[in-house]
Amino acid sequence: MSVGSYMISDGVGLVERRYETWHEPLQLESGVTLAPITLAYEMYGRLDPARRNAVLIFHALSGDAHVAGRNRPGDRKPGWWDNMVGPGKAFDTDRFCVICANVPGGCQGSTGPSSVDPLTGQPYNLTFPLVTIPDMVSAQVRLLDTLGIERVVAAVGGSMGGMQVLQLAVAHPDRVRLAIPLATTARSSAQAIAFCAIGRRAIVSDPRWREGNYPADDPPADGLAIARMVGHLTYLSEERLRWRFDRQLQQASALSYTLEREFAVESYLEYQGRSFVDRFDANSYLYITKAMDYWDLTRHYGSLATAFEQARARFLVASFSSDWLYPPGESEAIVQALEAAGRPVDYHALSSSLGHDAFLLETELLTPIIEEALDRAMLF
Amino acid sequence: MSVGSYMISDGVGLVERRYETWHEPLQLESGVTLAPITLAYEMYGRLDPARRNAVLIFHALSGDAHVAGRNRPGDRKPGWWDNMVGPGKAFDTDRFCVICANVPGGCQGSTGPSSVDPLTGQPYNLTFPLVTIPDMVSAQVRLLDTLGIERVVAAVGGSMGGMQVLQLAVAHPDRVRLAIPLATTARSSAQAIAFCAIGRRAIVSDPRWREGNYPADDPPADGLAIARMVGHLTYLSEERLRWRFDRQLQQASALSYTLEREFAVESYLEYQGRSFVDRFDANSYLYITKAMDYWDLTRHYGSLATAFEQARARFLVASFSSDWLYPPGESEAIVQALEAAGRPVDYHALSSSLGHDAFLLETELLTPIIEEALDRAMLF
Repeated sequence: MSVGSYMISDGVGLVERRYETWHEPLQLESGVTLAPITLAYEMYGRLDPARRNAVLIFHALSGDAHVAGRNRPGDRKPGWWDNMVGPGKAFDTDRFCVICANVPGGCQGSTGPSSVDPLTGQPYNLTFPLVTIPDMVSAQVRLLDTLGIERVVAAVGGSMGGMQVLQLAVAHPDRVRLAIPLATTARSSAQAIAFCAIGRRAIVSDPRWREGNYPADDPPADGLAIARMVGHLTYLSEERLRWRFDRQLQQASALSYTLEREFAVESYLEYQGRSFVDRFDANSYLYITKAMDYWDLTRHYGSLATAFEQARARFLVASFSSDWLYPPGESEAIVQALEAAGRPVDYHALSSSLGHDAFLLETELLTPIIEEALDRAMLF
Repeated sequence: MSVGSYMISDGVGLVERRYETWHEPLQLESGVTLAPITLAYEMYGRLDPARRNAVLIFHALSGDAHVAGRNRPGDRKPGWWDNMVGPGKAFDTDRFCVICANVPGGCQGSTGPSSVDPLTGQPYNLTFPLVTIPDMVSAQVRLLDTLGIERVVAAVGGSMGGMQVLQLAVAHPDRVRLAIPLATTARSSAQAIAFCAIGRRAIVSDPRWREGNYPADDPPADGLAIARMVGHLTYLSEERLRWRFDRQLQQASALSYTLEREFAVESYLEYQGRSFVDRFDANSYLYITKAMDYWDLTRHYGSLATAFEQARARFLVASFSSDWLYPPGESEAIVQALEAAGRPVDYHALSSSLGHDAFLLETELLTPIIEEALDRAMLF
C-alpha cells in the first residue's frame, strides 16, 4: 500500500518518492518479527508494462533512497549516485526503472529505531529489533512483490549495498538476473568490525545518548560526529588525503603552537562529522553498523562456494586498488567462490586512488563495464 | 642534578631509574621557554669511563623510560622493548649503556601537562606549552650533556621514536654515530594527522575532560579510551587481526542479536582502551599527538635531502610491509633523501604481518641487522 507519492524531476526526469507500509509481520533472522514495516523508496524512470526493466540499487551505511537528482532546485547536492543514474547514464533511466529503498533500521523514512512503536506510541529506540543484512533484503523483496516485479534486470550496490546484492542473489536467486557487488565483502573482517565498534563506543559514551532515549532535538552529536569521522576516514585512501590536503593549514599561514584544530584535514573531518549529525540518527548508526558486523554470507552455507551454488544470476564484481576497508582481496575471494560454484562472473580489479569511496566516484571506470553487463543481461 | 636514583635488576642486570631536573629554561620551537624541566630516565648497563658506549632509545607515543626488565618481580609485563634490550640481546647491556628518557609532555615522570607549575602550585593542564619533536630532542640532548656523553654509539626508535632519531641526526649531527629510525616518517601525513585528530576530538568531547582541568582521580576515561582504540587499531594490520580474532565471539556460541559487544576483537579493543586510561594522562595524549602532527623534518630545510646534508651519522632504516600507519614508502623517501645527501644508509624493507607494531615485536628480523650495524658503528 502506497501511503505517499509525489513527482519531482530535476535532472533525472521522472522520479517518484513513495512509502509502502506492510502490516504483515516481517520475520527477522533473530526469530522476532517486526510490524508494521514501512519502506521509503524512490523510482526513477518508467516501469514497463511487463515489469521487466527494473534495476534495484542498495545503498550503503550512510546512504538513503535518494539516489539521483535534486528534490528541490535549491538543494546543495543531488542524490548520492547522481553520476551513475539518469537519462543516458550507466543506469539509464530512459531505459530502466531504477528503484532504491531506504533500509529498515535506517532513518530516512523506512522503519527504524527512531520510528514510533505503535504499541507504546513512543519511538522504539533500543527496543527496536536487530535487523541483519538478510533482513534488509527480505524487506526489499517484499517491496518487489508489492510492485509486481518478478525479477530485476540488475541489483547493484557498493559497500553495505554490495552485501545486500550478494544476499539477494544467494537467498532469492530467481529475483535477479545480474548481480553487481562493488567494493564489498562476503564476510565482515575483524578490522571492519573494529572500526564499527569504535564508532558505536563513541556514540554510547556520549552522555547525551541517554541509553538511546535522547530527544530528536538533542542527540548525542559529539559521539555520532566522532563515529562518522572514524568511518569517513576508512572510506578515503592515504593517497587521496595526501593529494587533497597534505599538511596544508586551514587558515593560518604558520603553526599556532596550540592544541587548536589547524590542519585542513582536521577541519574537513570535523565538517564531515558535524554535517552527518544533521542527517543521520545515532541509534540507526548503532543498528546498521551492527548489521554490517553480523554480515557473513558463509554462515548458513558452510562455505562461500556452497552459498553461491544457490545463485542463478550472472555476476559483475569490481574492486578498487586503494580501498583498504574492503580491499581487492575480499572481492577476489567472492570471484573465486563464484567460479568454484560454476557461476558466470566478470571481475574488474580497478585501479583507483580514491579509496573505498571509489565506487561512488569512479564514473568513467564503472560506466562502460556496467553498460556492457546490462546489455548482456537483457539478452538472456 | 639527579634528584632520585635506585637500582633494580630483574632480567636485565643493572638498571638505574633516575630523574634529572634543570632550572635553566628550555627554549622551545614556539618561542616560549619551559623551566624547570625534569626528565625521568632509565640506564641499563654500565657507562664506560670514556662515556663512549651509550645507546639512546627514544620511545613512541604511548611508551616511557621503562624499556626492559620488571621494576618489581610481580609486574605483569616487562618494559616495552624487553625483547631487544638486555644481556646478549640486540642492544646488549653487557656491552652498551642503554638510556631511555620519558619525553617532555609525557606523564611518566618527565615534565608534562600533569606536572605542577611552580608559579601557581597547580598542574599546568592546558597552560603547558606545546612541545614539538625537536623540543623533545633538545631536552634529551641536555640529558646527554649532563651525563657527559659527547656522542652516542646509536640512537634508535620506532614510530615517534624514529622521528626523534631523525631530528637528533639532523639537528645535533655530532651527537650520534648510527641513527636507527624504524617504522617511521620524516613528515606526518594527512592520514596520520587525521587519526590523531579523531583521538583528540574524543578526549575533548568527554565532559569529564573539563577543558583540561580534570582531577587526577576522575579523568576523561571514555574519551581517552576511544582515542587509544583508534590509535591501537592503526598499529595493527588487517592480517594480524584476522589471524588473531577473525569473527570469533568473545563468550557466547551464537550471535546475540543485540547491540552488545560480542566479537572478540571488540573486547580486545575495549580492554586496550580501558587499560590505557590507568597508565596515561589524557592531556599528555593531546600534547604528544599534536607534536607528532607538527612533525615535518623538511620544514626548516626546504627538502628532506637538504635536511640530511646536515647529518654526520650512518643510517639503518627499516620498514615493515604491513605497516599502514607509516608505510614502507615513508621509509623509502627517507632512504632516497639520505642517498641524495650522500649519507651512508642501509635500508631493510622487512616483510612482516604485524603492522606498525612490528618494530616492537619482530625480534628475530631486527636483532641481526641491528647487531651488525652496531658492530660496524663501533669501528668508525
